[in-house]
Amino acid sequence: MISLSNAADFLLKSEDVAILSHQFPDGDTLGSAAALCRGLHKLGKRARVFCSDPITEKYAYLFEGLKQQEFEPKTIVAVDVADEKLLGEPLLSQFGGRVQLCIDHHASNSSYARQCYVDKTAAATTEIIFELLSLLQAPVDSVMADCIYTGITTDTGCFKYTNATPRSYRIAAEMMERGAQAAQINRVMFDTKTRQRMEMERLVMDSISYYFGGRCAVITITQDMIRLSGAMQDDLEGLASIPRQIEGVLIGITIREKEDGEFKISLRTQPPMDASAICERFGGGGHKGAAGCTLAAPLAGAKTEIVGAVGEYLKRAAIY
Amino acid sequence: MISLSNAADFLLKSEDVAILSHQFPDGDTLGSAAALCRGLHKLGKRARVFCSDPITEKYAYLFEGLKQQEFEPKTIVAVDVADEKLLGEPLLSQFGGRVQLCIDHHASNSSYARQCYVDKTAAATTEIIFELLSLLQAPVDSVMADCIYTGITTDTGCFKYTNATPRSYRIAAEMMERGAQAAQINRVMFDTKTRQRMEMERLVMDSISYYFGGRCAVITITQDMIRLSGAMQDDLEGLASIPRQIEGVLIGITIREKEDGEFKISLRTQPPMDASAICERFGGGGHKGAAGCTLAAPLAGAKTEIVGAVGEYLKRAAIY
Repeated sequence: MISLSNAADFLLKSEDVAILSHQFPDGDTLGSAAALCRGLHKLGKRARVFCSDPITEKYAYLFEGLKQQEFEPKTIVAVDVADEKLLGEPLLSQFGGRVQLCIDHHASNSSYARQCYVDKTAAATTEIIFELLSLLQAPVDSVMADCIYTGITTDTGCFKYTNATPRSYRIAAEMMERGAQAAQINRVMFDTKTRQRMEMERLVMDSISYYFGGRCAVITITQDMIRLSGAMQDDLEGLASIPRQIEGVLIGITIREKEDGEFKISLRTQPPMDASAICERFGGGGHKGAAGCTLAAPLAGAKTEIVGAVGEYLKRAAIY
Repeated sequence: MISLSNAADFLLKSEDVAILSHQFPDGDTLGSAAALCRGLHKLGKRARVFCSDPITEKYAYLFEGLKQQEFEPKTIVAVDVADEKLLGEPLLSQFGGRVQLCIDHHASNSSYARQCYVDKTAAATTEIIFELLSLLQAPVDSVMADCIYTGITTDTGCFKYTNATPRSYRIAAEMMERGAQAAQINRVMFDTKTRQRMEMERLVMDSISYYFGGRCAVITITQDMIRLSGAMQDDLEGLASIPRQIEGVLIGITIREKEDGEFKISLRTQPPMDASAICERFGGGGHKGAAGCTLAAPLAGAKTEIVGAVGEYLKRAAIY
């Protein structure tokens, strides 16, 4: 682990920088990469963002006006990438074992890079990038401010999750002063749903059933529902948080049929319920608030099994 | 209009303060009232919060441990109340024409109080209360920090709306440092839905229809749906924003059957569509982004009328 000023010194001496994002890119890895790339351009360096997956329309504004310079990378930097495997293909084949600097906020970072700077108190990697750009004396313009704000707001669920800190809020405030279009970014990230997503939510809500006096709610996502709604992978994200949102629900269960016919079970709980304790019974795991496991039975059987386990858990906890 | 330090001076000299909230109270009026009340108690004054409506369970934490002192009010202060009428009954009868100081952030404030301090650049009245408490030298403890944070987050839709400013974010950061339970507050305010609300959303989503190549989406809320779901007034709030959230929708329409059988139409638009221009045709009005009107026809007729007007508007704008 190096210091952030070591990282800045390394970048100041670097040339022809490849900046790597993780696969299935989100606002933080792309915001970090785009902001750093723009900063390096301002310092007169050649730099370019790489990602194994295409950048969706939603994130296009992060790259607006950013020149995709052509060069043979001499310096390889990864941002918001906790493990080399998360680069995905083709980046892993292209850059695997060669990452010289990694800037990240994941506590789980596997220290795969030659030099690592990991600040797990940062809600988003863009918080670190903001501080790095300041050390590099690269001025943050309005598009870079958009990039940095985007990382913070997407990784904190619009400042809603427990990971958002006063530092997150203060950097966000400064980014707004530097021209970040906060409200517009939040509208795109949090208030826009595809018709397919809307249809998927409708079907999911049709599937809600309640157990144990409303302390447990179950939703089902079948392959049929996915076909019917036309939902893509992106459209399914976060559906598992729906049952726990319901007042009085301590344990929310999502049963999702996989393409191979098995069922992926996701549990989301309110404190002090322990989701991982329940999922471990079926060979799964996770955290107290969110855990998962896989069940092979047909839908009705999978539902009976997991609801039964939740019932026993509630009984043992003397809650129902 | 007085200055905020005039307001502070007035409060420092005041005794036995009644602090009035607006009817159908929200997080900002209650957070403002509770924070100010706690601050005045710290200064050794008697003070008490009044509201025409009961405080729902959701906001109970703002009043935890707050003594409801009994006294005959000598000083009447209103917070976040834009017009005296908004006090509702019984407060209007009890205190109407007698409000000595009003602290507010609504541009529409009608200056009904003897002294008014209105800062329309504040996203929430609690932002002003925070500054007022500082002038009063009343220390902000963790519960007061909860109150102030609550006003900001609820009035900005969890920092999502255009009204959130760098100042909002910075005060929020400071409140977190003083002990505000930000994530917990946001979970209660934004990630908790009653079963009735969930059921209402399900029914509303079943009612979605699209027009003009998906540029317009319509939802319907009938009295039958309200009965079926068991939804209360609170459960219906914000439903009108659902159609506009759908990707590609420029004009979202909500048709809500009133108890008297008429239909309340709410339009929500994406820029540059002008909701008020459409509603004015039916004698309604509002803003560019949000407007409303009332239609008397039966449901099918009301829908035809408003969708027809939207179609003509889109045609004139050469969009469809």
